[in-house]
Amino acid sequence: MNIEMIRAAATRLSGHARVTPLLNSPFLDDIAGRRVWIKPECLQHTGSFKFRGAWSALSALDEGTRSAGVIAFSSGNHAQGVALAAQMHGVPSVIVMPSDAPALKIENTRALGAEVVLYDRGSEDRDIIGAQLAEERGLTLIKPYDEPQVIAGQGTTGLEIAEQAAAVGVVAADVIVCCGGGGLTSGIALALEADAPGLRVRPAEPEGFDDVTRSLRSGGIERNSAVSGNICDAIITPQPGDLTFPIMQRLCGPGLVITEDEALHAMALAFLRVKVVAEPGGAAALAAALCRQDQIEGDDVIVTISGGNVDPALFQRALDTLE
Amino acid sequence: MNIEMIRAAATRLSGHARVTPLLNSPFLDDIAGRRVWIKPECLQHTGSFKFRGAWSALSALDEGTRSAGVIAFSSGNHAQGVALAAQMHGVPSVIVMPSDAPALKIENTRALGAEVVLYDRGSEDRDIIGAQLAEERGLTLIKPYDEPQVIAGQGTTGLEIAEQAAAVGVVAADVIVCCGGGGLTSGIALALEADAPGLRVRPAEPEGFDDVTRSLRSGGIERNSAVSGNICDAIITPQPGDLTFPIMQRLCGPGLVITEDEALHAMALAFLRVKVVAEPGGAAALAAALCRQDQIEGDDVIVTISGGNVDPALFQRALDTLE
Repeated sequence: MNIEMIRAAATRLSGHARVTPLLNSPFLDDIAGRRVWIKPECLQHTGSFKFRGAWSALSALDEGTRSAGVIAFSSGNHAQGVALAAQMHGVPSVIVMPSDAPALKIENTRALGAEVVLYDRGSEDRDIIGAQLAEERGLTLIKPYDEPQVIAGQGTTGLEIAEQAAAVGVVAADVIVCCGGGGLTSGIALALEADAPGLRVRPAEPEGFDDVTRSLRSGGIERNSAVSGNICDAIITPQPGDLTFPIMQRLCGPGLVITEDEALHAMALAFLRVKVVAEPGGAAALAAALCRQDQIEGDDVIVTISGGNVDPALFQRALDTLE
Repeated sequence: MNIEMIRAAATRLSGHARVTPLLNSPFLDDIAGRRVWIKPECLQHTGSFKFRGAWSALSALDEGTRSAGVIAFSSGNHAQGVALAAQMHGVPSVIVMPSDAPALKIENTRALGAEVVLYDRGSEDRDIIGAQLAEERGLTLIKPYDEPQVIAGQGTTGLEIAEQAAAVGVVAADVIVCCGGGGLTSGIALALEADAPGLRVRPAEPEGFDDVTRSLRSGGIERNSAVSGNICDAIITPQPGDLTFPIMQRLCGPGLVITEDEALHAMALAFLRVKVVAEPGGAAALAAALCRQDQIEGDDVIVTISGGNVDPALFQRALDTLE
């Protein structure tokens, strides 16, 4: 895993993934006590950065392997990223989802051209189902984060941040990244190490699901005691990845932990001040910039909004925090 | 008014205004029956394209004139655009607003550094108040649309559309523009005439406030019978501008008229599918692309989302249309 892989992924993504802009607002600067720069990956295809990693992984396969198709386990942003990247490559995709996943997510993934295979969480093992399908059809598994070409794709976000930060004169700042398994976080960290060494990545996580923050503190991989029960579901994983953690350990500053209410209010401020739609997990980094000022240094802070796939009802709860 | 003024404005705006991306979604393509490309000017500074025209006008003044300050009449997007452009130039701005304007708009405009002068709509004449202030302090009036340097600034949106459309292989399409006084519409039309002659601008307006659509049809300036009473308030003006109308008449295709409910639903789809916040008037062009398919030709359509300054309560009404 190295910077050359990220640069090669950027070449493959060019003209297919979107270059998202860097946004800001004087109103957010006032709240944070420093300038806040937002990288809105909610504006990426399928509404999250996951499309970058999916496209990177698919485009890195040799044509024979790719044409047989790909498979992924996900009911969320990774599923949609893989489905669209496969559709744009003209190859089949199979997404294995729990049968109790929200109907809208199943429908959206199907609409992006994927074959959705449902399994019963209580009685069936998704790994066995997936392995069997992969073998029968020659499908390649696209893992959500612990996979070099996926990390390389997410890292292209960091190449853009380096360039865009330099364009606004920011050469030293914390870059807070919404962090689940660490694919985006480690990819951005590697990109910045090469292209903007004054920018330091710090993961943001929800309270109670701060495995990366604790792992960085203890120096070894720590697990979450639960993997559900928080509105920031998009960035909750059991533990940091085996590939991503050593990168984060080498390059990242301390993690920042935010509450559900803080994530909701950050969503509302993203609506009000920069006109983008953030999902709760996607707003974690902005929440940290706005609510953990005392744990951040410097005149500038950069944050990712990693995704915007949120149900209207939950978004309305976020808007209610403005009253 | 010519293309060279738009190119000169683009040079002055470079590094100050944002280059907004071009967004799309297969879900919107399905609804529209053709590919839909969205230019989200809601992501511009102050949440609307108005910042472009304001920056263009301010930066075109000679330094002595500019340093005395500027004045504008507006309670909406133009006010915020002028206030921020003046603040970024380090010069004073006075915004004349009706005293019954929403408190949040007054507060936002003040927060952007403007001096807000309130007048009573019933008993006072804003033109007299403004003229007196301008004379006393040597302020320059920045008109909202019928002003060459403002049109030139809005036209920079068209230069970007021409380049971004070419990058995705679109050389012939209707470009639907949310239309009030016609500053954005005529500016984009001039830019496309020069840089993308296969792209034709068409104004979008709310039902009952379709002065430009009717004027284009009759060949002479037609007035609206009212100037309030529609949620698309940002794009309602008494009549097309004296400068903007001849440009629209020469270059634009027929107008498209949408209802309030269609605007609300387009806002909801912008939320769901491209993760941006549109205000009702800002969603008019998208609504036209989605709901007036039979009045549009070709495999592609381009639409502006001209602004995103919408109150949470009204946005919740839009989200309710998804249920």
